[in-house]
Amino acid sequence: MPTVDVHTHVYPPSYMSLLRSRTTVPYIRNFPDAPDSARLIILPGEDSASTPSTSRGRPIGPEYHSIAHKLAFMDAHHIAASVISLANPWLDFLEPAAAPAAASSINAEIESLCAQHPTRLYHFGTLPLSAPAPAVCAEIAHLASLPHCRGVIMGTSGLGAGLDDARLEPVWAALAAREMLVFIHPHYGLPSDVYGPRAAADYGHVLPLAIGFPVETTVAVARMLLGGVWERHPALTVLLAHSGGTLPFLAGRIESCVAHDGHLKKEGRLERMRSLWDVLKRNVYLDAVVYSEVGLRAAVEASGQDRIMFGTDHPFFPPLDGEETEWLSVKTNYAAIKKAFDGDESAAEAVLGGNAARILKLDL
Amino acid sequence: MPTVDVHTHVYPPSYMSLLRSRTTVPYIRNFPDAPDSARLIILPGEDSASTPSTSRGRPIGPEYHSIAHKLAFMDAHHIAASVISLANPWLDFLEPAAAPAAASSINAEIESLCAQHPTRLYHFGTLPLSAPAPAVCAEIAHLASLPHCRGVIMGTSGLGAGLDDARLEPVWAALAAREMLVFIHPHYGLPSDVYGPRAAADYGHVLPLAIGFPVETTVAVARMLLGGVWERHPALTVLLAHSGGTLPFLAGRIESCVAHDGHLKKEGRLERMRSLWDVLKRNVYLDAVVYSEVGLRAAVEASGQDRIMFGTDHPFFPPLDGEETEWLSVKTNYAAIKKAFDGDESAAEAVLGGNAARILKLDL
Repeated sequence: MPTVDVHTHVYPPSYMSLLRSRTTVPYIRNFPDAPDSARLIILPGEDSASTPSTSRGRPIGPEYHSIAHKLAFMDAHHIAASVISLANPWLDFLEPAAAPAAASSINAEIESLCAQHPTRLYHFGTLPLSAPAPAVCAEIAHLASLPHCRGVIMGTSGLGAGLDDARLEPVWAALAAREMLVFIHPHYGLPSDVYGPRAAADYGHVLPLAIGFPVETTVAVARMLLGGVWERHPALTVLLAHSGGTLPFLAGRIESCVAHDGHLKKEGRLERMRSLWDVLKRNVYLDAVVYSEVGLRAAVEASGQDRIMFGTDHPFFPPLDGEETEWLSVKTNYAAIKKAFDGDESAAEAVLGGNAARILKLDL
Repeated sequence: MPTVDVHTHVYPPSYMSLLRSRTTVPYIRNFPDAPDSARLIILPGEDSASTPSTSRGRPIGPEYHSIAHKLAFMDAHHIAASVISLANPWLDFLEPAAAPAAASSINAEIESLCAQHPTRLYHFGTLPLSAPAPAVCAEIAHLASLPHCRGVIMGTSGLGAGLDDARLEPVWAALAAREMLVFIHPHYGLPSDVYGPRAAADYGHVLPLAIGFPVETTVAVARMLLGGVWERHPALTVLLAHSGGTLPFLAGRIESCVAHDGHLKKEGRLERMRSLWDVLKRNVYLDAVVYSEVGLRAAVEASGQDRIMFGTDHPFFPPLDGEETEWLSVKTNYAAIKKAFDGDESAAEAVLGGNAARILKLDL
């Protein structure tokens, strides 16, 4: 069974130009104290003059925009097919008037890249989420017409007020009606003061990336649950980045807090609310980007081994010395799958590629 | 093997009086629209006039301060011994000058309660953390002289700047030298805007309690790791509330983010930093307050089944209708242990009480 990477990003050339043209986050620039390297700054917390240059964003090279690099990475890691997606922050920052055309253009550009590499590249499309819902629904219709599109990628901001925003109703309805999977991915993290006074100077990107990102996903999905999204859209399916953030571990606590909440009981919500465990097994797919067999086993137990799909998060987390062909971040996730299934080859193969091929209807 | 509850709180009478005397968070009051019930308000987010009365704090009854109620709860749930601790927010809010005497008095009061119920009650002591470190160390010495004290409980604020604060060095040194376990427990959660515009009115306490609390613990311990606390104090042991927050699930991602961080590498931190997996197996104990076998198995895999200890979080999460003798929250955690160990009676007994008896040197 070929290996399929469902969590792998690209900033296509037009998006690179957009980032280079900007002077506020998100943007690409060369810093005076790091002149040999263009750096990509996508998080507000990365844009402080007091931050060491080694913590200001990340070096950005051709692996971020070159499909040749993507294919070479895939070859080096024995990945048969990749479902590529625009990386964060997508088009969330665009003026509403500019977003629909930009989304349509980028989706067409990525579709064209996929068409040039049949059986190797598919994609999750980008939505113009700063525009009103009808424009978003129009782009969903466009994406549904693209042969290599297998769903959409979406941040946790939605139309600006989160994924429990009532204005998203027509978007969820359109996605569910077209059976388009929604890849929910973090970008905004947590307010930086959560990490304390030493984090910015001393701890690099560890806390925002290792904790802020998965917590953002966790909160976003919990808000969808509490807001009743899956009660109204039982056919809506989502793929959650980083094995669901922390949901497999926290699902029990979330369910207990719901069951013990006096306000929810008074409002009559307890009877109607979907069980999170049930949502995890019927509406949720998880990637296997969790970097340990401990986390992966929890993900498998929470959603089922037929709902977990291998991913790399390429081109993020490259080797620090830039020389290894085989990336540590990818090796760690491969090793987690091997350990989690401990000799059960068919289960490992399902997670590595079989599930993705079936769920996303890939021609490999 | 008797069952031991290591996560069970009390607000002793003197602390109740203190809360009743206050008019800002934390405090106890009767609201005009909920006149039949005194309510305990401990979180700033709970203190808004626009919040429904059913979401303003929680009803507070004798289960919060009465040792007779604690013992009846223990009997109803087959708990032989409890290691009681002052509940959050402890004495974090006191003026520095008032804190040392208050801590000393409350610790003596709780010690006296334990002495009245031999073999049934032990305690984790309270520190005057708003006072300077020497006063904190003096109270550690006092606690070490109390026969029923088995460690200390501590929030994540430390002396006000988190658990990676250099000013805590003498405190960690004193605790490690006396082999006193530190029960790290959340209180502050996350900034309320993380939960979005609908949370306060619509979702009760679910998001702050189910996600904010465990994430606070996770960040606090990650900061201790990154700040090098266990490099300098290899004998320091901690008990983490709620099975480590989310650490068992996120440990792989945290380790990967450390290994891929250019700033940490440049600073030479990668060679010296303790592995989080190693800390989880040598310096960390986890309670079993995670409400699912999925989370509990991850906790067991992360720290080892000889380091997990049963807990209830009593008197929080009472039955909503107030009538059941056996609490759903406790039954859920008992069931998780039963399912996680699936017939391995000796492992289940170790988690239910054997580990606590050995680790905390309890005379049962």
